[in-house]
Formats: sequence, C-alpha cells, structure tokens
Amino acid sequence: MPPLSQPDLPEPAHPGIDSMLSRKFGKEVANYFSGSPLNRVSFLRPDHAFLTSALHHPSTQFLVFNKLEPLLKSSTELARATFSDVKSVIGENPWERPEEDIIAQYNSSLYIPQIIFLGLDERKEGFVYKEHYKGQPWFAVDVTPKESVQDAAEKLVEKLRGGGLEFSKGRMHMSLPAEEAAMYAEARHLLDWNARNPFCASCGYKTLSVNAGFKRTCPPKDIASEINQGERPPCATRTGVSNLCFPRTDPTVIMAVVSADGKKILLGRQKRWPPHWYSTLAGFLEPAESVEEAVRREVWEESGIHLGRVVIHSTQPWPYPANLMIGAIGQAIPEGENIHLGHDAELEDAKWFTAEEVREALRVGTSGLGEDAGAEYKEGGLRLPPKTAIANQLMTAVVNGFASGSPMI
Amino acid sequence: MPPLSQPDLPEPAHPGIDSMLSRKFGKEVANYFSGSPLNRVSFLRPDHAFLTSALHHPSTQFLVFNKLEPLLKSSTELARATFSDVKSVIGENPWERPEEDIIAQYNSSLYIPQIIFLGLDERKEGFVYKEHYKGQPWFAVDVTPKESVQDAAEKLVEKLRGGGLEFSKGRMHMSLPAEEAAMYAEARHLLDWNARNPFCASCGYKTLSVNAGFKRTCPPKDIASEINQGERPPCATRTGVSNLCFPRTDPTVIMAVVSADGKKILLGRQKRWPPHWYSTLAGFLEPAESVEEAVRREVWEESGIHLGRVVIHSTQPWPYPANLMIGAIGQAIPEGENIHLGHDAELEDAKWFTAEEVREALRVGTSGLGEDAGAEYKEGGLRLPPKTAIANQLMTAVVNGFASGSPMI
Repeated sequence: MPPLSQPDLPEPAHPGIDSMLSRKFGKEVANYFSGSPLNRVSFLRPDHAFLTSALHHPSTQFLVFNKLEPLLKSSTELARATFSDVKSVIGENPWERPEEDIIAQYNSSLYIPQIIFLGLDERKEGFVYKEHYKGQPWFAVDVTPKESVQDAAEKLVEKLRGGGLEFSKGRMHMSLPAEEAAMYAEARHLLDWNARNPFCASCGYKTLSVNAGFKRTCPPKDIASEINQGERPPCATRTGVSNLCFPRTDPTVIMAVVSADGKKILLGRQKRWPPHWYSTLAGFLEPAESVEEAVRREVWEESGIHLGRVVIHSTQPWPYPANLMIGAIGQAIPEGENIHLGHDAELEDAKWFTAEEVREALRVGTSGLGEDAGAEYKEGGLRLPPKTAIANQLMTAVVNGFASGSPMI
Repeated sequence: MPPLSQPDLPEPAHPGIDSMLSRKFGKEVANYFSGSPLNRVSFLRPDHAFLTSALHHPSTQFLVFNKLEPLLKSSTELARATFSDVKSVIGENPWERPEEDIIAQYNSSLYIPQIIFLGLDERKEGFVYKEHYKGQPWFAVDVTPKESVQDAAEKLVEKLRGGGLEFSKGRMHMSLPAEEAAMYAEARHLLDWNARNPFCASCGYKTLSVNAGFKRTCPPKDIASEINQGERPPCATRTGVSNLCFPRTDPTVIMAVVSADGKKILLGRQKRWPPHWYSTLAGFLEPAESVEEAVRREVWEESGIHLGRVVIHSTQPWPYPANLMIGAIGQAIPEGENIHLGHDAELEDAKWFTAEEVREALRVGTSGLGEDAGAEYKEGGLRLPPKTAIANQLMTAVVNGFASGSPMI
C-alpha cells in the first residue's frame, strides 16, 4: 500500500520576513484550514454597491454547496462556478437595494438562498472598488434544493453533475490544498452558522441574514405577519450591539501533555476510534477561563493528571461546525502523574507513551480516521492523526524538543 | 491625589513548580478575571444528588445578583449569602428530581430563578461527595425581582440592603481581589448567557436551563401548551450534540504592534475615550481564522499596518458579556508601517509611540476609563488602561523587551 499523500500545511504569511519576533520565536505554525489567500475586507460587507459589483464581475468565483457539502472537481480540488451558473438560484442581484431597505421590507415567508462573501484574492488583477480594494472576488452559495428555489436548484445540481462535478460525501478528509481548505472552511462555517440559527435566541422570532452572510438581524417588522400589522415586540438584539447577531466560534483547547521529566507524552483514546489509535486530549474552553486554566481543568477531568506550566503553541480553525482549536503544551507536576479516568467518562483509555514511541508513530502510523495507516505501519503499533490535525503538530513539536530543546513556537 | 490602588494580578497556578516549560518560557501571565480558586467538577453538573447536597451543605456560599449586578460588601469585596438567605427565592431544592424528569415535566409558564454552580474551593474542608470531590461549594443566584418571585425577591433585596450590603452600579471597575474577580466573572458570564438566550435559535421555542446553569435544552414537550397536547415540533438541537445548547464565548484578539525596528508601538483611540487616552487595537476573531490571521486582518483593517510575525502572549476572560481576549504581539513589516484609517472607521486615531513614551505612561498615566490618572501624571501626556487590562500587560511585555530582549512569554 502506498503511503497516503497528505497535503502540505500552509506556508505562514510573509515567510521571507526575518523579524525580531521570528528570530526569537521561530517560524509560525500555520495549521490546516488557516492560510487563506483572501482579504475579507469585512468593512465592505454592508455596502450593497460593493457587493453588487463584486457579484457581477467577470473574474468572480463561486464555491457551490448542497446541504453543506461542497462541489468538487476532484477529491483534491474544489469546483468553481460563475455567476451565470448560479444566477438561476440566487437571482440577478440580491443586493440591489441597500441593507436598511431589505430589513425594512422583511418578509419571513420568502426563502432567500444563502450567499457568503468570502473575500478578495489580491494576487489576481481585474476587479477594483474605490481605488483601494482590488482582487478576484470569491463567494460561496447554498444551492440546496428547497422552498422556492427547489426546481431551479435541482436543475443546477443536475447540470453540474452532468459536467462531471460531484458534491463531497461527508467531511473533506483533509485532502484539499491548504489555500482551498481555508476558503472552504470560511464558507462552511458561515453557511452552517446561518442554517443553524434561523430564529432569534432573544425573542424567538425569525431572523434575516445580512452583511453578506456575516450577520443575522432580528427585523422590527415582518410584512408576512398579520398580527399587529407586522410589528414585532421589542427585542434586546435591536438595542446596541449583541453577540447573538454575529457568527459564533467556540474556543476549544487541545494539548500535548508531557511528564514532569519531559520524557513521556500523555495520549488518550475514545471508544469509537480504531484499535491502537490515540490522540491528544481536548475540550471546550468554558466561560471565564484563561486558555491555561481550561487546559489544566480538561486534563485533570479527563485523565486525573495535574499540570503546572502550560504554553500556547498554535491555533487551528475547525469548521465542524464552529471551533477555534487552541493548541497548547502542558507539563505535569511531579506528584500529579497518576492517571485516573473516573472523573469524566469521556475517554476509554489514557496512557503515557515514550517520546520514542510517539516519534516512530508520527513516522509510520498516521492517517485520517477512516483510512489505513502507511506502508511501514506494523499491526499493534500506535496510530495517530495526520499532519493536517493540530494534534499531530503538537506531538511533533514535543518530540522535536519544544518542551526541552531549542526549536521554539 | 493619591495613586489609584490597582488589585494585584492573580498568581499563576503552581508558582513553585520549576518545570522545563517554565524555565524555557518564563512565568505564566495570569490576567485579571482568570485565576479562579474553584474546581468546577463540570462532570457533576448533571448529577442532582450532588447538586442537592452541595446546595444544602452548611459551608456553602452564594453570590447574589440582581439584574446582573453582584451584591457587594464593599467596593473591594463580594458579599456572601447562605442558603437560608436565598431559600425564599430559589425554593427548598430545585434539584429534587433528576434532570430527565425536570425536562419531561417542562412547563414554559413557570419562572425558575437562575442558579449557577460555580465549583468547589478545595482549600476549605467539610463538604465531601463520592470520596474524590471535596471543598466548599459556591453558587451564584439571580434574585432579580420578577415574575413569580417578585415579592420574595424584593423582600430579600430589602433585607440585604438593610444589612449594609449594596448591589454594584455598572461594571466592577476591576477593584476586586483576583480570586473574587474570577468567581464573579464565571457567575456573570453564565447568568448573562442564560438571560440572553431564553429561546432556541434552531426552532424558536423556549428553552430550559439545565446542568446547574451550564446548558440550555429545548424540551420536546411543554405541559403549558395546549397545541398538539404540548408536543413540540422536532428540533435539530435534540439530535446529537449542538453548540447552541452550551454557553457561548467569543474569541477576540488584542494586540500590541511593534514597528519593524522594534522601537515604536502602535496604539489607537476611540472617539468616546477621554483626551490623550490610547490603547492596543482589538477585534473579534472571525470564522475560519487562526489567531495570527485575525490579528493581521484587524490591524490592517483598523490602521492600514501590515504585520509579519505574530506571537500569542496570554489570554484574559472578559465577562462583558462573553469574551475570551487572546493577547498577542505583532511586528510590522518594513514596507507596511504607514497608517491609513480609511478602511474601517472604528478608530478616531492611531499612531506610533516610542517605547520610552509608553514606558513612562505605564508608570504615571494608567487608570480605569472613568477614573483620573495618578498623581505624577502631567496633563497632555499619554494615558493608558490599568494593569488589570490585558492591553496594559501587552504593552508592559513589549517595553520589557518581549520582542527583542530576554524575558519570554
């Protein structure tokens, strides 16, 4: 069996710059799903004139999604559609009117296919807006056949499939090149957030997507409603800024734990994983915790180990559905190395591995969860997640001497 | 005018441990609102027997809130109530029945005052549960007079005030000792999240607080409803795990920006701030961004500066209402130092200060936003946030040589 090809991790931005921070802390670790080539120009999202001209520019590219599954050209390449491909579903111009007017004319009975403005690829010339903002515009469009676009979307999906393209099955399995993975992650996170939050958590009424997919607002009036001439009750999200209107990202901690002497690494396994498969521990950061506190709490709850110093290593966006993984390395205190799985029942097992075992498994035993390990893997040996997972990067940092030797963050 | 007394920052956990990570990365920076002395034992939150015995233990302490304002003994001390104080509002035992029964018997017409289980202070003996879990239990209780507890809560508030206690006005102004600030932050973040999310964002129906305030669930049946015998339509949050059921924490980035030569620091000001007041730039991390990418995007959007290497420094929980501030230090690239405020209109001004100006302002010009600067401050000099703000810690790290000299994270 040939070894699995893993995509290279994205190169960090400005790799050529030898700044003081670079000399002191080393190269930035840019994890998979980060490394987007796009400038999001977030402040232009409410500007309907900008969105209109970006939507209609001949260079503009569209990622197409059906029930959160992206349209693929192959398993290692996203398909790109044009405005003329998707026009039948999204219409000639959903941003014809200013956002205030769209909110004032809100009609909860109308179905509006979700569109996300992803950003401008400034390496590509052609599109220019107000002198400063240049580059190829990218959008993501939801063409799930439903409601009023059922027929148009079904026809479009059929046509795309007829052209040899296919919607992905399940997760992307980390097989896209780094830049495409980052654009996919942005699109998927925002499409999911919009789809998951059709109602206002503050008042229970339906909300409307604005800011090109980056905000949901609770309109004060609904022309589809006959109650009180469509006027809705007051809603707290309309007075001042409310986080409920903005996309949610859940900070999670994931950590390589080293023993007090720095020679062993703690890994855990969940019951549903294949035999011999282990990984770093992880969990959600809770309200009013620093990252270091969340790491110490999660490690103690899941394994009984007590940590002293914790250091943040790198971060990874994770669009299933909405996480920011904050990777850390923590060191057990000498009297706190005993494993106890009885607090929280999350793990089936946790144990200490030698740095040598982990180093060897990183060489021969890595793969995606549903895949086979590489050709050199021997049955019974430790299996680990692939390079595209931050867990792998954390373990790699430890065996390369992060905790004790010279290479830094 | 005497200099303002700033509370000391919390000591990091295990200060005596000289681990390899400590020797390599230095002392952990524990920012204000972190440093809680409590073990949250999060896995015990669904256990009604545990909650019942913790609620009724004679050592148990209660923080009391009225419309999110905490009850204070003085401006530097939270008041502590006992179960007999709050019983008239929360009842003899809200956890008498198992959680499944409470969900099955859900009645949306009943008002249930919010209670949060904060954790166990393991330094205090007395309470023991299942051998492993020991320490003084802490809860937070919302006694806002409303709905069915209006009278009881009003009487309680009157009684507490009669005893010389007062509910805080506005924000805490960072005057609590570190450990109390951390417990307050946990309580405030969770009370706010529960109050802000009474409805299900997935289906629009009312939700119910469970897990001692750390989860909201969308019950399948509501005995207060006559429609369809109280059976509610299917809701996506009931199939599998949904992040909508769990407290939201918004990751934000805040960053000290140094010039390419390391000699200058970029600071910005908002229009509403007092004259001469500046601080580090900050903003929300967006979906599918690494921390470093969010820092580079925000700095460019707000100031036009292009950053190269970015390094994470420390994190700060911020309970207004629900942030995790991720503090970083970034270095401008040589050709990217020109300030341009025209992209995003957030800042009134941004400019480069010398390290010497910032060092002097950290000595004489810091205070809370509504307060006067210290005695040595001279009118017209730079003013900065206090030590309890992570912005201050980031600037301090830079002037102490984080970017160029020896002290590490």
